[in-house]
Formats: sequence, C-alpha cells, structure tokens
Amino acid sequence: MSHEEKERYMDQITVKAETLIEALPYIRDFNNKIVVVKYGGSAMTDKRLEESVIKDVALLKLVGMQPIIVHGGGKDINKWVDRLGMETRFESGFRVTDKDTMEIAEMVLNHVNKYLVQRMEHLGVKAIGISGKDGGMLHVKKKMPGGKDIGYVGDIVRVDTEILETLLLNDFIPVIAPTGMDEKGETYNINADDAACAIAGAVQADKLAFLTDVEGVCMNPKDPTSVISVLNLIEANELIDSGVISGGMLPKVNNCIRAVNGGVNRVHILDGRREHCLLLEFFTKKGVGTAIIGQDSAPYSNEK
Amino acid sequence: MSHEEKERYMDQITVKAETLIEALPYIRDFNNKIVVVKYGGSAMTDKRLEESVIKDVALLKLVGMQPIIVHGGGKDINKWVDRLGMETRFESGFRVTDKDTMEIAEMVLNHVNKYLVQRMEHLGVKAIGISGKDGGMLHVKKKMPGGKDIGYVGDIVRVDTEILETLLLNDFIPVIAPTGMDEKGETYNINADDAACAIAGAVQADKLAFLTDVEGVCMNPKDPTSVISVLNLIEANELIDSGVISGGMLPKVNNCIRAVNGGVNRVHILDGRREHCLLLEFFTKKGVGTAIIGQDSAPYSNEK
Amino acid sequence: MSHEEKERYMDQITVKAETLIEALPYIRDFNNKIVVVKYGGSAMTDKRLEESVIKDVALLKLVGMQPIIVHGGGKDINKWVDRLGMETRFESGFRVTDKDTMEIAEMVLNHVNKYLVQRMEHLGVKAIGISGKDGGMLHVKKKMPGGKDIGYVGDIVRVDTEILETLLLNDFIPVIAPTGMDEKGETYNINADDAACAIAGAVQADKLAFLTDVEGVCMNPKDPTSVISVLNLIEANELIDSGVISGGMLPKVNNCIRAVNGGVNRVHILDGRREHCLLLEFFTKKGVGTAIIGQDSAPYSNEK
Amino acid sequence: MSHEEKERYMDQITVKAETLIEALPYIRDFNNKIVVVKYGGSAMTDKRLEESVIKDVALLKLVGMQPIIVHGGGKDINKWVDRLGMETRFESGFRVTDKDTMEIAEMVLNHVNKYLVQRMEHLGVKAIGISGKDGGMLHVKKKMPGGKDIGYVGDIVRVDTEILETLLLNDFIPVIAPTGMDEKGETYNINADDAACAIAGAVQADKLAFLTDVEGVCMNPKDPTSVISVLNLIEANELIDSGVISGGMLPKVNNCIRAVNGGVNRVHILDGRREHCLLLEFFTKKGVGTAIIGQDSAPYSNEK
Amino acid sequence: MSHEEKERYMDQITVKAETLIEALPYIRDFNNKIVVVKYGGSAMTDKRLEESVIKDVALLKLVGMQPIIVHGGGKDINKWVDRLGMETRFESGFRVTDKDTMEIAEMVLNHVNKYLVQRMEHLGVKAIGISGKDGGMLHVKKKMPGGKDIGYVGDIVRVDTEILETLLLNDFIPVIAPTGMDEKGETYNINADDAACAIAGAVQADKLAFLTDVEGVCMNPKDPTSVISVLNLIEANELIDSGVISGGMLPKVNNCIRAVNGGVNRVHILDGRREHCLLLEFFTKKGVGTAIIGQDSAPYSNEK
Amino acid sequence: MSHEEKERYMDQITVKAETLIEALPYIRDFNNKIVVVKYGGSAMTDKRLEESVIKDVALLKLVGMQPIIVHGGGKDINKWVDRLGMETRFESGFRVTDKDTMEIAEMVLNHVNKYLVQRMEHLGVKAIGISGKDGGMLHVKKKMPGGKDIGYVGDIVRVDTEILETLLLNDFIPVIAPTGMDEKGETYNINADDAACAIAGAVQADKLAFLTDVEGVCMNPKDPTSVISVLNLIEANELIDSGVISGGMLPKVNNCIRAVNGGVNRVHILDGRREHCLLLEFFTKKGVGTAIIGQDSAPYSNEK
Repeated sequence: MSHEEKERYMDQITVKAETLIEALPYIRDFNNKIVVVKYGGSAMTDKRLEESVIKDVALLKLVGMQPIIVHGGGKDINKWVDRLGMETRFESGFRVTDKDTMEIAEMVLNHVNKYLVQRMEHLGVKAIGISGKDGGMLHVKKKMPGGKDIGYVGDIVRVDTEILETLLLNDFIPVIAPTGMDEKGETYNINADDAACAIAGAVQADKLAFLTDVEGVCMNPKDPTSVISVLNLIEANELIDSGVISGGMLPKVNNCIRAVNGGVNRVHILDGRREHCLLLEFFTKKGVGTAIIGQDSAPYSNEK
Repeated sequence: MSHEEKERYMDQITVKAETLIEALPYIRDFNNKIVVVKYGGSAMTDKRLEESVIKDVALLKLVGMQPIIVHGGGKDINKWVDRLGMETRFESGFRVTDKDTMEIAEMVLNHVNKYLVQRMEHLGVKAIGISGKDGGMLHVKKKMPGGKDIGYVGDIVRVDTEILETLLLNDFIPVIAPTGMDEKGETYNINADDAACAIAGAVQADKLAFLTDVEGVCMNPKDPTSVISVLNLIEANELIDSGVISGGMLPKVNNCIRAVNGGVNRVHILDGRREHCLLLEFFTKKGVGTAIIGQDSAPYSNEK
Repeated sequence: MSHEEKERYMDQITVKAETLIEALPYIRDFNNKIVVVKYGGSAMTDKRLEESVIKDVALLKLVGMQPIIVHGGGKDINKWVDRLGMETRFESGFRVTDKDTMEIAEMVLNHVNKYLVQRMEHLGVKAIGISGKDGGMLHVKKKMPGGKDIGYVGDIVRVDTEILETLLLNDFIPVIAPTGMDEKGETYNINADDAACAIAGAVQADKLAFLTDVEGVCMNPKDPTSVISVLNLIEANELIDSGVISGGMLPKVNNCIRAVNGGVNRVHILDGRREHCLLLEFFTKKGVGTAIIGQDSAPYSNEK
Repeated sequence: MSHEEKERYMDQITVKAETLIEALPYIRDFNNKIVVVKYGGSAMTDKRLEESVIKDVALLKLVGMQPIIVHGGGKDINKWVDRLGMETRFESGFRVTDKDTMEIAEMVLNHVNKYLVQRMEHLGVKAIGISGKDGGMLHVKKKMPGGKDIGYVGDIVRVDTEILETLLLNDFIPVIAPTGMDEKGETYNINADDAACAIAGAVQADKLAFLTDVEGVCMNPKDPTSVISVLNLIEANELIDSGVISGGMLPKVNNCIRAVNGGVNRVHILDGRREHCLLLEFFTKKGVGTAIIGQDSAPYSNEK
Repeated sequence: MSHEEKERYMDQITVKAETLIEALPYIRDFNNKIVVVKYGGSAMTDKRLEESVIKDVALLKLVGMQPIIVHGGGKDINKWVDRLGMETRFESGFRVTDKDTMEIAEMVLNHVNKYLVQRMEHLGVKAIGISGKDGGMLHVKKKMPGGKDIGYVGDIVRVDTEILETLLLNDFIPVIAPTGMDEKGETYNINADDAACAIAGAVQADKLAFLTDVEGVCMNPKDPTSVISVLNLIEANELIDSGVISGGMLPKVNNCIRAVNGGVNRVHILDGRREHCLLLEFFTKKGVGTAIIGQDSAPYSNEK
Repeated sequence: MSHEEKERYMDQITVKAETLIEALPYIRDFNNKIVVVKYGGSAMTDKRLEESVIKDVALLKLVGMQPIIVHGGGKDINKWVDRLGMETRFESGFRVTDKDTMEIAEMVLNHVNKYLVQRMEHLGVKAIGISGKDGGMLHVKKKMPGGKDIGYVGDIVRVDTEILETLLLNDFIPVIAPTGMDEKGETYNINADDAACAIAGAVQADKLAFLTDVEGVCMNPKDPTSVISVLNLIEANELIDSGVISGGMLPKVNNCIRAVNGGVNRVHILDGRREHCLLLEFFTKKGVGTAIIGQDSAPYSNEK
C-alpha cells in the first residue's frame, strides 16, 4: 500500500466510522416507525433507479422500519387509452374519467402494482399489492372541481387502516394502487400524492417521502446546491409568501404541509434521480433533500 | 288462521326446528375451519347467483368459518384478446400463452379479482384481493405438456401460506387470482382448479368446494335425482373404473381425489346454479351435491 | 321421485335455506352470550319435554352460548312434607317455612338439582349443580311480607357471581337450586323466578327465558294464535294498564319488566309445552313466545 | 416481669422462633400443593373440633395450599332411614342399598355437603359443594362383593378432574359428597375413604390426610405415645406382616398404601380429636400422627 | 414419657399451634411484599448474629417476601484510612471526605458488599451486590451542612428503582453499598440509614427494619421490658415532645417517621443482638421491637 | 462549492451510501446478539480511547446488540500492593496470590469495575457492575499449575448465567470483574481473558472481542497491513503449525480457538488503539482486525 493509498484508506475508514456513528442513533430511533414512500417520476422509469429504490426499501425494512409504497400509473394509462383507440373527453378544461377510462386506469394501476410486487418479491422482500378498494381501505366521494362532474375521480373521505396494520404487523410491505370506492360501491381513481398523504396521516407515519425529479427546496431555484435540509412549517410558509417556493414546487410543498398538519412527523421531498436517496436522507445528518417538519423545531437548522 | 294454514305453519315450524337441530352441530364443528371455494361457471355470470354465493360466503364467515375464494377469468380474457386484435397461436394443438397474452390475462384476472372484492366489500364483507405473486404465495415452474413450450402457463411447485394465514387470522377473506412466479421472477398463468386444490392442501382446509354447472356425481348421469351425497376414495375409484364417472365429470373428480390425498378433509362438487348451495351442502345432513372424503369412512353412506 | 315429492322436497330445501339464513346471524350475535333458563312447569314433569329442553340447552352451549339453569322444587317438596307427616302452619294467611320444612325443602331442591345434573351429564353436557349457598352466591335477608315472620323465606340482597363466572369460563353449565344464606349463615328458601331474575341481572345475561305453561302474551287471551312476538317496556306497561295483561300473566310480565330494568337484554316467556321452544324462539325471526325488551326499540315490531 | 415470668417468656420466644424456622420451609414447599382431607369421625360430630378443622383448612388455603374436602354421611343416613320407616335388607350378609335407600343416602350426603359449605362460607372461606356426579367427576361401576348384587354401591373406575382443577384454579375449596354415576347414568353410593384415595391419586395430591379417632400407627398399640411419625411402604408392609398393624388400623393403612402407590406423595393418619392436627402435622418436623411415604426414603426416620 | 415431660410436650405443642395460627396470616399478607433491612451494629460484627440475620433473610425470601439489604462500612473505613496513613481533616467541626478518603471508603464499602454477597451465596441465597452508582440508582447532590463544603458526602435527590425491580422480579436479593453519583458523574458517600430510608420509600416497601443495638423504643428508657410494640406517628411525636424519646433514639425515630411519611407501611427498630429478631418481629403479634406506623391506626395498640 | 469540493462531497456521499448498504444487513443480523468485549490494554489507559470504546458499546446497545464487558485490573493491583508495602512471594517461578494480595486484588478490581460503571452511566448507558461472586456466577477451583499451590488463583469450572440473562433481558450492560468462589465460599482471582472466554461460551455469545495492542493476526508479522480479516479454525491451526502465528499472538489465538470451540460464533482480535474499532469491525465487510470463525466457512475469505 502506497502512502497515498493508505491515506485514502484512512480517510475512508474515518468517513465510515463517522457514517456509522451518525447512522446508528437514527436506526434505533426509526425502529418500528412507519415510512410512506410515494413512488413515481424518474425512479419509476429508469431500471437502475428502480432497483436502487427497491433495495433501499428492503434495507429500511431490514433495520426495522415499516415501509408502505404508494405508486401512480405513470405514463402507462395514456399508452393503453391510445392503444384501445379511446377518446379523451374534456369538461370545462378538466379531463373526464368516464367508466371505460376508469376501467383501463384501474387495469393499468393493478398491472403496475403487481409488477412492483413481483420486483420486490424477486429481491426477497415480502410485498403485498393492494388497491384502496381492498379491505375497504380508501373511502372516496366524487371530486367536483368547480362543481363540474369530471367522472370517476375521487377525494378520500376516510382511510380504514385495518388491512395496513395487519400487513405491517406481519412484516409485509404494502404496495398500494390509488383507487377507492364510494358508498355506492363504485370505483374511483385517486391522485397518488393525495393517497400517500392521506395514508401517511391515517397510519400516523413517522415519515412520508416523495420521490421527485428535483433536488429538494432550494433557496435559489437555479442553484441545486442551495437545497435547504430542513424546513419547519413557519419557514415553509414564509418561503411561499416570499415567492422562493413557487411554480411546480408549490403544490409539492403544500402537500407536505398538509401531511405534517395531518400528524406525519417529517415529510421529505427527495431527488429520486439520486441513487439510494432514501438511505442518505434518513440516516445522515444533512440528508440529500428537504425535510418539512412541525413548527416547534428551531428555524433553518440544517441538521435532521 | 285456517286449519290448513295452521297445519302448514306447524309443518314449517317442525322443519325449522329440525333444520336447526341438524345445523347447530355442524356450525360448532366447522368453527375456525378453512373452506376454499373455487368460484366459476354460472355462479359467476348470473348476477342473482353471484349475489347468493357472496351472501353464503358472508354467512360462513359470520358463523366462524374461514372462507378463501379462488376464481378464474371466465370469458373475459378471450374478450380482451379479441378487442386488442391479438392473434392466438397454437403449438402441437396446445394454445400458446405468449408474453402479450399473459399480460392481458393478468390484467383481466386482476380486474375480476378487484370486482369480486368490490362486491364483497359493498355487502360489508372484509375482502382482500391478491394474486399468487403477492407475498410470493404461488411458486410455479413452466408447464411443458409433452415436452412442448406453450408459454407462460405454470404448474404450482410450492405454496407459501404466510399471507393467507395473516389475512385469515385478521378476519379478511382472501380472494385469489391464479397467477404465480417462477424462480426467475417471471409471471405465469395457472389453471384455477389447480390453484384451488394446491391452496386448499397447503392451508389444510377442512373443505374445498367447486361451484360447477352440474348437480354432482350421479349414479345415473341422465337422472339428476341420482346424485350421490358422499363418496369415499375407494368408492370414487370404483365408479371411475366402472365408467359411471366419465366425460367432463372425470377430471373434476380426479381433482377432488387429489385434494383429499393432499390433506383436505372433504371436497364438494356443488351445483352452482342452485341458490345457497354452499349453506345447504355444509349445514344439512343430505346436502345438495357430492362430497368426496377419505377412504376411512363407511361406503355409500349418504349422511354428511 | 314423483312430481309432488319433488315439489315438497324443493319446498323443504327452501325452508331449510331460509331457516339457515335466518339463524346464522343470530348464532354469531349470541356467541358467548349468557342465557338464563328458568326451568319449571310441564317441561319439568313430562319426560319428552324434559328431554327436548336438555337437548336445546346442549345445542345452545354447542354453538357458543352460555346457558345457566335455575330450577324450582316442583311438587316434590309438598310430597315429602306429607310423607314425613309434617304439619303446615300458616301465619296471617302466609304459609310458614319453619326450620324443619326448610331442611326438607333444601333436601328436595338438592335432589332435583342433582337429578338434572345427572340427566345432562348422561347426554354428554358438562353440568355442575350448586345452590345459592355455594361460593356465597346468593346473599339473602328474611322476607317479611306485611311485617310478618313467615320463617326461612328469603329475599336476595346481593349476588356474588364469582362461581358462575368460573363455571361459565370453563364451559360448565351451572344448574342452580334457589337457596341462600343470610349474614348469620342461616339457610333460606328463595322463589325460583326471583332467583332467575336476580342471577340474570347480576351476570348481565343477554337473555332470560321462563319456561311456562302458556303460549306467551296474547292480544286476545282466548286466542292462542294472537301471541305477541316482541313487546318493549312501554308497550308492556300499556297492555297492563289496559287490562290485556292480567291474571296469572301479570306477575310473570312484571318479573320480565324487572329483569329488563336490571340489565337483561331480552326476557322471553316461552311455552314449555312446545318441543324445542328455546331453539325456535332464539334462532327464528318470529319466534314462538313473547320477548320483552327495553323501550328503545320500535313498538309492536314482530321481528326479533 | 418476675424472673420466672421472664424465663418462661424467653422459652416461649425460643419455641416460637424454632417453630417459625421449622415451619417456613414447609410453607414454601407446600405452596400450590394439593391436600385432600377425608373428613369424618369425632372431628365431624364435635362442634369445637369441627371449628378447628375448618380453621386449619382456611389457614392451609391462606398460605397457598389447595385443600379438597371429602366427607361421608356419618350417622345421619341411618337416622333418616329409621325416621322414614324403611327396612334394611341383607344379601348374604351384605347390607343392600336399594333405590329408595340410595335416594335417602344421596339426600343426606348432599345435606351434609351443603352444611359444610355453609360453615366454611360463614367463616369467609370460598367453598363449593359438589357430588361425584357433577361434571361427571366420579365414574363408577356396581360393586359386586363375591358376585353378590348389593344394590347401588359403586367402585370408582375413573375420575374426571376437570371440575376440581377449575375450582382449585379459581381458589374455591371443593367439598365433595361421595356419589357417582355408572355408564347408564344411574347414581351410586361410594365409600368416602375410597373416594378420597381415588381423588387424591387423580389430582396427584401432595398429601392425603385421614381425620380418624386414633393417634396414628403405634409400635405398641396400647401405648399412644409410641406413635410412629413416618413410615415408608416397606416398613408399613413389614409392620403388617409382623402383626403390629392389625385390627381396625389394617384397612386404614392399606388405604394409605394404595394412595401412595397411586401417586400421592404423603398420606397422613391423623388424630382428628386433637385440635389443629392438620397444622401441627404439616408444619412441624415431628408432626402429630403417622405419615406413610414411598419406599425411597430412609427407614424409620422420624423427621417429616 | 413422664407426666411432666408430657405436660411440657403438650405445652410446646400448644405454643407451636398458636405460633402457626399467629404466623400464617402474616405470611400470606406479606407475600411479595418488599422489606428493606438496614444491616449494621452488633449484627454485623458478631459472626453468630450475622449468621442468624442471613438465615432470617433467607427464610423471608423463602416464604415469598422480597428482602433488600442496605449496609454501611462499619469500622473498616477508619481501619483502612489509618493503615494507609491518611490524615483526617475537619471543617468547622465536620469531618471532611476528600477525594482520597472517598476512594478508600468506596473500596471498603464494595469489599463489605461482596463479603455479604459471598456469605449469602454460600448459604444458597441468590444475592447481587451493587452500589448506588450501578444502573444510576442513587442520584445525589453534595451535602452542605451549614453551607460548609465537607467533601464527597451526598444527599439523595432521586432513586432510580429500575435495577432493584429487575433484581427482585428475578428473585435476587439486592445487597446495596451506599454510594451514589451527582450529575457530573462524581462519586459520593451516603449515610446508610438515609440510603435505606430513601430506597424503602422509592420501592414503596411494606417494611423497613433497622437492626440496632437497643431493644426498641421504651416507655422507661431504663427498663428494657417497657418496649412499645407499635407506635403510630401521632404517638411517636407525642413521645418526642414529652422527652420520652430522646438522646440516641431521637434520630433513629425521626428516620422512621420520615420513612412512614415517604410511603413505607411499617418501620421497625429491632434489637439486632437478639437472634432471629426479624422472624419474631414480623410473624408474631407482639413482636420483639418497636414498629412505627401511620397515624390512621389505633393509639398504643400493642398488636402488630 | 468548487468543482473539487463537489467531487469530494460526491465521493463522501458515495462512501456514506456504501457504508450504510454494507452496515444495515449486519445491524439486522446482530439484533439481540450477545457480544462479549474483553476490555484491557491501551484502550483502558488512554482516556480518548476509553471514551471511544464506551461510545461504541453504547452504540452497539443502541442498535439492539447485547454487550457484556469483562475487564481486568490493569496495572492498579501492583500499584496498590506497592503502596501498602506488601511483599510478593514466588513459588517455583509462579507469583503467589496470598489472602492479603487477594483482598487487595479484589478491592482494585471492584474499584475499576465501579469506575467503568460510573463512566458508562455518565454517558447515559445503563450499566451494572458485578463480580463473578454475585449471583454465584463464576464457580472456580484452585488453579494448581504443575501441582503447585500458588494461592487464590482460580480456574472456572461452571458459569451460572442467570444474573447475566436477567441483566441483558432488562437492557442493562453487565460490567464484570473476574473474581469467583469455590465450593467452600472462598474468593479467587481469575485471568480476565479466561473469564471472557468462559462467559462468552456460557451465554452462547455471537461475538467475543479482545481489545489488544496489536493490529490483528498478520501474514507477515512485520507488516501491519498484512492483517488477515477472517481465519477459520483450520487456517488458524495451519498458521500456528507453520509458525506464522507465534510469540505473544499465540496464546491470544489459542484463546480464540477455545472460544469458537465453546460455541462462540466469531472471536475478534481487535486493535484497541484504533478509535471505534468495534464499530468498524462489526459493521464493515473488511473490518479492522482478525476474526476467528468455525471451520465450516470458506478458507481465507476476507469478507466478514
């Protein structure tokens, strides 16, 4: 071993020891804690990233956390609608989900759902794919934006967590397709981010992580290195008011705020394009995205 | 009340008392017993019968039994294959399930699966729809009839019952779509009768009931009133040897024999066209179909 | 099978299916529920009816209910008093139970008690015969009607349910002779109907059934077919005020009202002369006697 | 305090300390151990002795032992047979227990049974009086001495200990009248010593104590101070062979030997005429009667 | 046996029976009760008394009580200070415990601690020797009498009972050396009587017994036979006010009063010079020392 | 952030992710596993290293492992023997531990013991300091090297693990001073390495780690970079035979071999001079010392 190699080795050893000392207390703290992962974006379409997410989820499970995956249908729904030569109808600017489209959407969501289960099972992770209809988990009512009927798109009115508790208690990872039923027994499509928020609140998750295609919330949106590690609710609202948080980031952050208000301890906007972003965010002090937390914590502290 | 009415009323009262005296011991005996119902045929296409089956399953659950539903895809798979303009290929007489067909088959099976869940949940029954891929329940290998590769059709090599035990223990009714994975993580289609047999054996079900479109095994195939209530294995084999059991009934009875040998206590061939056939078979002495049982019981006894 | 036979058979099958659909929800609802049966009258003197009652109690137990039997001494006490040449003394019109009579009464009650145990055990039912003195179950004080001392006749002041809970929890059917002790340790005779009421209230029984020699409460006392299936407290009091309930039925109904007020869910006046009256009353919608229930239920509804 | 008083006080203190040091290890050893007491003789007819026995039993219970009382009918059965003017029939020298006599015997036994319960309950001890018919505890067959039918006198063929275990586990003291049933459901009288032996064996009692009217087994039957504290089986048989044990003591000792062979750890012949004989026998080294033990212990050791 | 011997024997038997009747209820009452024994004085320096105390503690444990021993260092600390030629410094009249003295004190206390463990283990008693530092049991702050710093002498501010509960629950007898830590992690010496008081209060002991070199609290301090068996708090304070309790007895009684106010049920001042004083005090009515109890009990009653 | 900083940051992030991916499976595998740490050498005398060891032990505990510390007396025993002016006697070349030396040794060991407890408690780790005498944990007999009596030096003959199991189950870290008792109740000194081996075997530890002043076993003893990560028993014996393992390393490795044969899964020779050597050895693939394992594993594999 050359002197340089040795130095590099010692550096590595030091980083490793520091990483462990950083990580171990988190591991204990997060034991048995529920983490809801909204899975979507690049992490869903790039095989290498998909692999990295599944491995991270497996490791979270391995060290005692209780992951729940909520996924969307990605671009597959449109693909099938086209393939079947179905037409898309609009109502006052809103796209309408009619019965046929809903049927296709449900088939595609279930297909993605079983695909994820299959991938996880193949890696040795015990996963169960369910929809919000199973066990009557997601009760919805028809969404009526501006009073318009846009078909089978639902707002969640109640989450029955019994099946989730059963699966978690028995060490299965629930993989959830965002459909639900109304009181007449009709099936509705649900926005996957909304479903993740509602579920995380209902199971009183410790964490809710959105895998997105951005670095996190940045002080300067043009500088990806200006990512803010931790934002409390007051700070988040200030940044919204001052316009720092705007554009496509605004609904994401509003979702996070809703989840924190709903009882989730920490909501994370992660860069799903970075491999192992879940591990790095959860088990290092600085993390690799933005965590939104309740307003009782110190302002602009960058330690998680 | 006229004299006749009164007599009729007393008759009814007597039948009711007798029915209760007959049924109560079964109810106690069947408490906590697992019953696998292979759901298919007319009972699946006629709404009134569908309703009657779901109600029966709900009542079985209500009095403490643990039902599991295994279903097929019915005629919907072909319908979708046609709709998508896909071609059906044959290999030495066997229909081939290529990757695309498998994808459609899986989507249709999952669709039927969630439809059944939806119907049961709407009637207040807690149901969870899963496939054989969830929780790695059904491990398969490629079926090679006569050494021919007919695509993604699988034979079950192992049943991992953990998810079933979890769901049953927590009072959910599992509704199962017959797909599975091989060791490479590929998805395969499975014959629904085979899946029901394998699952019933693996969970050591007390009962396995096939909802068919016949009355049961008849001494005289032309006389539906000649249904045999109970057959033990020896008798069943004698009736096969003597040609009484033949034609379409033969594979059904062979399936039953396999299930009894696999550890299921009683396997029932029921007439799914008769309303409440599950209740009548399980809770009356004579029943309404044919039960196949192990060879230790008395020959041709007609009491269940 | 002739056409008529077949029709009759299909009728029977239909009644059976209906009976089961009616009965199964009751069976689940009544699981683990305590039912106190006051056993007396014809059902106690006619061997066939005795057999039918014991079989019903066994079946109630079998399907998970928890029966308790309270019995009286019937006509045996007088028979023994005569046989021993003892004289009956009266005090201002009340018959006096002196020490000797009490001794005889207790011996006879214990004898009946062990006879019932013997009959039940012989039918395979686990029964334990106890008096109200065992485990200090029934604490009494001397009854002083109009301030007169009529000897060892007691009013129940407290029920210690520990021995009952122990026996029920261990699947024994308690058979109870109505004697008790006062605080000086003296033995007293108790009216069996009163004992049944007090015990049913103390164990918070779901049901208390009196086996009597009448059909139930009738709108027209002369027409046995005018039996009222269900009466709530308000209705019962109205029928008392209007004189419909009168004569020998009055004290029976008052007993029922007391029991309902004491926390028993339903109190049944049954015709002990009808075979299997317990099963028919509990597991069919119309029942075969009169049930008295709390005042929150709908008036004059005839469904149980 | 005079010098003498002080000396006497110090003596007493010394005896007290010694008594405690002797007793405490027994108390621990006997914790949760079952002790069957055959109650009869003078201890049953003398009120002061009756009181002392009941108090001892209460104290045994108090320090964690599990007493079971088996009693006979004493002289009351003959008294009632006479009172009712019934005749006693003999068959080849054996007194015959016909149906009527059996009825009287059972009534008297149940009466004694409830009297003991009443006495114990009045002293604050939780007691339950049962016969061998309750819970099907004592299964008998007709005793046929020399092939003669002497009526309803039974030999125990099986003890079902379920009710005893239930009562002991729930801290009730079972008080047992020695009657039982044969397989036809007929009632039989049982010798109380035999019943005590059979029950002690069946519950694997640590101790069985016979309250008798003698000091114990004496080396010199004429010298009551020659009582032997402990006899093992070999010694007991030697003393029988050598004629030291003879006369009325012989059947008693044979009963003890049978019980030890049946699995009872120690069987005690106690002088029921001595107050607190149970406490003194169990909690002092020398004891106050004769204990019969298995043959593995040292011969003629006088320490318990 | 002469007449006199016999009489003496009968006397003994009577005392034994009485002792048992006295002791048995206490044994049951004290089951699972915690008793803290402050071990010191003659009982610590006389081998025979040491033996008697250890035997008593073993017997208390044997019959289900939970003893905890708190000991001091006796005269050994001074012996070692001398041996090592260390000087003793005084500050305004108070002896100063500097760092070196504290080191020696701790070593000696641990030595005595392990010696007691060794003696108990050798007698078959499971003992664990710990200090107040183990498991952070005793949290102290520096004692500042009159504002003077007298070194490493501590006042207990909090008792963490977790290790004591763990040891008691697992049937070990904790043997405790009175040292503790302040919040900086420094070691302090604690007065053993104070430690016993604080521990007894923290574990809500039923009893706290001080083994002293006096008979107890005497009405006439010159007459050892005038020991008062039981004093309630009001009486104790009256005797202090009236000067009956004074001198060396005063701090002892004040300690007792503090312990009773801290939740200990009974605090006993025992004569450690009398063999088996623990047994005699706890298991006889009169006892052999003085018990201080809460003020709700009757005044000057001499029964324990 | 400059380009170089960014690269360095990305490197760090990569190492962190890798470290976590490496460590997480170990953390799960080691959950609830017992690890015995023999604490001695530089790690005991250098405050910074002492701190690092205690922190590592705390982190091991934090993530669910169950550490046990066994320590020696270091150089303090000799220091005290000198201070007290005691003479050291030799017998045939062996140093003799006479009664006085034993007393000093025990005092010093207990002192070190309580010091370690104090340090750990101050860092918030629940620790209990015990000796091998407490709870009768270490049973010894006198060591007689070459038949010579060298005083109170003991060989362990039996380990009673009850107190260890109690402490571990209740989340206390046992800190053990290596003394024990023989059957006469005499105290003996025990070699700390031997004590660690015996204890690790008795509790079936998963790991036993010796903190030493060397890098581990080296292929070339002069090149510290030639440390072998993993040695199975066969390899270890080959290296002994070939002379690679020799000198001071020989007894260390022989101790390891004994421990593996005694049932310990892995025995680690660690360089106690390296900070956080416990974490790095246990949670990275390559580790930082030498692990000796059973002979079933692959030869010279360098992955842990």
